[in-house]
Amino acid sequence: MNERILRVQKWLKQNDYQFAFISDPTNVFYLTRFMCEPHERLLGLFIFPESEPFLICPQMEVHQARHAGWDYELIGYQDHEDPWEKVEKSLQKPELKGTLTAAIEKDTLPYQKAMSLRRLDEQLSFASIESFIASLRMIKDEKEIAIMQKAAEMADYAVTVGVNAIKKGRTEQGIIAEIEYELTKRGYSEMAFPTMVLVGDNSASPHGHPGNRQIKEGDFVLFDLGVVVDGYCSDITRTVCYKHASDEQQAIYETVLEANEKAIKASKPGTRIGDLDRLARDIITNKNYGEYFTHRLGHGLGLGTHEAPSMSENNDDILKQGMVITVEPGIYVPEVGGVRIEDDVYISEQGPVTLTSYPKTLQIIS
Amino acid sequence: MNERILRVQKWLKQNDYQFAFISDPTNVFYLTRFMCEPHERLLGLFIFPESEPFLICPQMEVHQARHAGWDYELIGYQDHEDPWEKVEKSLQKPELKGTLTAAIEKDTLPYQKAMSLRRLDEQLSFASIESFIASLRMIKDEKEIAIMQKAAEMADYAVTVGVNAIKKGRTEQGIIAEIEYELTKRGYSEMAFPTMVLVGDNSASPHGHPGNRQIKEGDFVLFDLGVVVDGYCSDITRTVCYKHASDEQQAIYETVLEANEKAIKASKPGTRIGDLDRLARDIITNKNYGEYFTHRLGHGLGLGTHEAPSMSENNDDILKQGMVITVEPGIYVPEVGGVRIEDDVYISEQGPVTLTSYPKTLQIIS
Repeated sequence: MNERILRVQKWLKQNDYQFAFISDPTNVFYLTRFMCEPHERLLGLFIFPESEPFLICPQMEVHQARHAGWDYELIGYQDHEDPWEKVEKSLQKPELKGTLTAAIEKDTLPYQKAMSLRRLDEQLSFASIESFIASLRMIKDEKEIAIMQKAAEMADYAVTVGVNAIKKGRTEQGIIAEIEYELTKRGYSEMAFPTMVLVGDNSASPHGHPGNRQIKEGDFVLFDLGVVVDGYCSDITRTVCYKHASDEQQAIYETVLEANEKAIKASKPGTRIGDLDRLARDIITNKNYGEYFTHRLGHGLGLGTHEAPSMSENNDDILKQGMVITVEPGIYVPEVGGVRIEDDVYISEQGPVTLTSYPKTLQIIS
Repeated sequence: MNERILRVQKWLKQNDYQFAFISDPTNVFYLTRFMCEPHERLLGLFIFPESEPFLICPQMEVHQARHAGWDYELIGYQDHEDPWEKVEKSLQKPELKGTLTAAIEKDTLPYQKAMSLRRLDEQLSFASIESFIASLRMIKDEKEIAIMQKAAEMADYAVTVGVNAIKKGRTEQGIIAEIEYELTKRGYSEMAFPTMVLVGDNSASPHGHPGNRQIKEGDFVLFDLGVVVDGYCSDITRTVCYKHASDEQQAIYETVLEANEKAIKASKPGTRIGDLDRLARDIITNKNYGEYFTHRLGHGLGLGTHEAPSMSENNDDILKQGMVITVEPGIYVPEVGGVRIEDDVYISEQGPVTLTSYPKTLQIIS
């Protein structure tokens, strides 16, 4: 049995839950290595405290599940069949008697699927398995780190392409097109989220929409993008200036850079997460830009672009070896523009390892 | 009150449901013109048989909801607030007493959100509103058709770019990069689904994955793509040959084209949907390719790439004025290759109006 499924089994035993039903494609992939996006069809991984797990998926995906290495019971179904009947059969186990509690993904599992489970047992209770799986996914192993390193390298490459594409009159969308064109040519066509290139005062919006704004002298150009490699996401932000930078732009940039670098340096096993946000926030506040740092310091990164832990001021959890987080302070001054500098940081036993490596000294593009 | 919300109200009255809770971002957009992707946060449109509806969304989206034209009660909430408490307050209505049934999107609403609704009333029953909303969305008005015409034109343009990019040694991913680059430059960066360019025997897989296969002489090159315009999707497939086409390739192509054209011609109000699939299937079967047409004739198209109606053999529903469907017969012969020809067809009172217009005569690219 793979280590991850063993941990779910142990957790089920400890909590006296009779089975887990996992349906979110990313969680199923994490536990089985089988990636399947079944849309409205049923994908389900059933895990039991003692007996072997089983997996149900559309018939046309069965081959791929085996190919991905799934060795246990595997149930395929055709479109004209009722998959829940097949589930019901496989759930005829002697240990599933009496009062049953199923651990499900309460926050994402559609109501109808939960009710289909209850068809099997009218008295079935539900518990949530989401934060437990999040706690597993939060700690990356060596293989995952190697993939994320590659994803970070492709993000660095994407920024390089974007910075090289800066020219007077170029639009935000034009530069995005250039970046994604070059990535796709190299075989990386999946972005972790819609690529952002924000120019001038549009960069002052932390979640601005790229459009047809043209680059002009004295503009900030902000890149925020991520590349997916083997399911894992990277997430980088860099900001440069076009032609020249005012004193205020330079002051903003240096403040963000200091917050980014000092927070990364402090990202070690044992650091309280809220303290890390506080450290960065204090640097920015001391330079009187506190009110313009309008979001948390960062977030966990992995199979999801945003996963645990949340790098917010009120998070009392501590950083642990194996986490990958983003450190992304920003200052957004309306009408002047915004600067954000974001890196992906792996928390190793020895301290922070920055996976993204595109240079951070303020660049004035001429 | 807008016409669509009035229809939901009427339906609630007819079914004796006390309110509707709509949370799917696309359905909310359809009913309110407000597009909001709240991720794990709450977005909810509450509609009542008699009284005015209200909308709840994250505080930072409130301005956009007003901008989109929402004139009724609008509730914003901050991240540190419990949105359900605010919902509870707004649900303090005299008509919400006694046995209550809420119409919800059972197939997509997460279990946890349904339980939060039940927090308001432990005895709350749930009914499904999904097929009713699907039946509304299925019939497009003139404004929607105008947008879909534009989306179809951009799909035509995308195929033009792709066909022009065909060259010996070009890869599938390379051509996709070219297509999306040109679209993004023109301001259309959202595709309806991942663009497919399939070359040679890879075209024989109806849902193949584009990779680094290079175009060589005698290959089919199949394009399947869609462009999103103002929320609405197009969906086109064209297949061409590189340098030369064998007799078998020509026979396959001409058979698919005949099935596509005759099925479109028969797409009129009153036609049984299953008969349309049958008509296309018979043409292909008569040429002995029946076993290689492995999917339904098509699907409805609109705010979703796949919506009602399903153009399958066993669908007894009839085509109605205002529907937009895809007509996409295909023949996939392993090792030889696959051909699919897909158009978006608007069912007007006078008969079929084909929105996509890229030429369909077999092209041999030299």
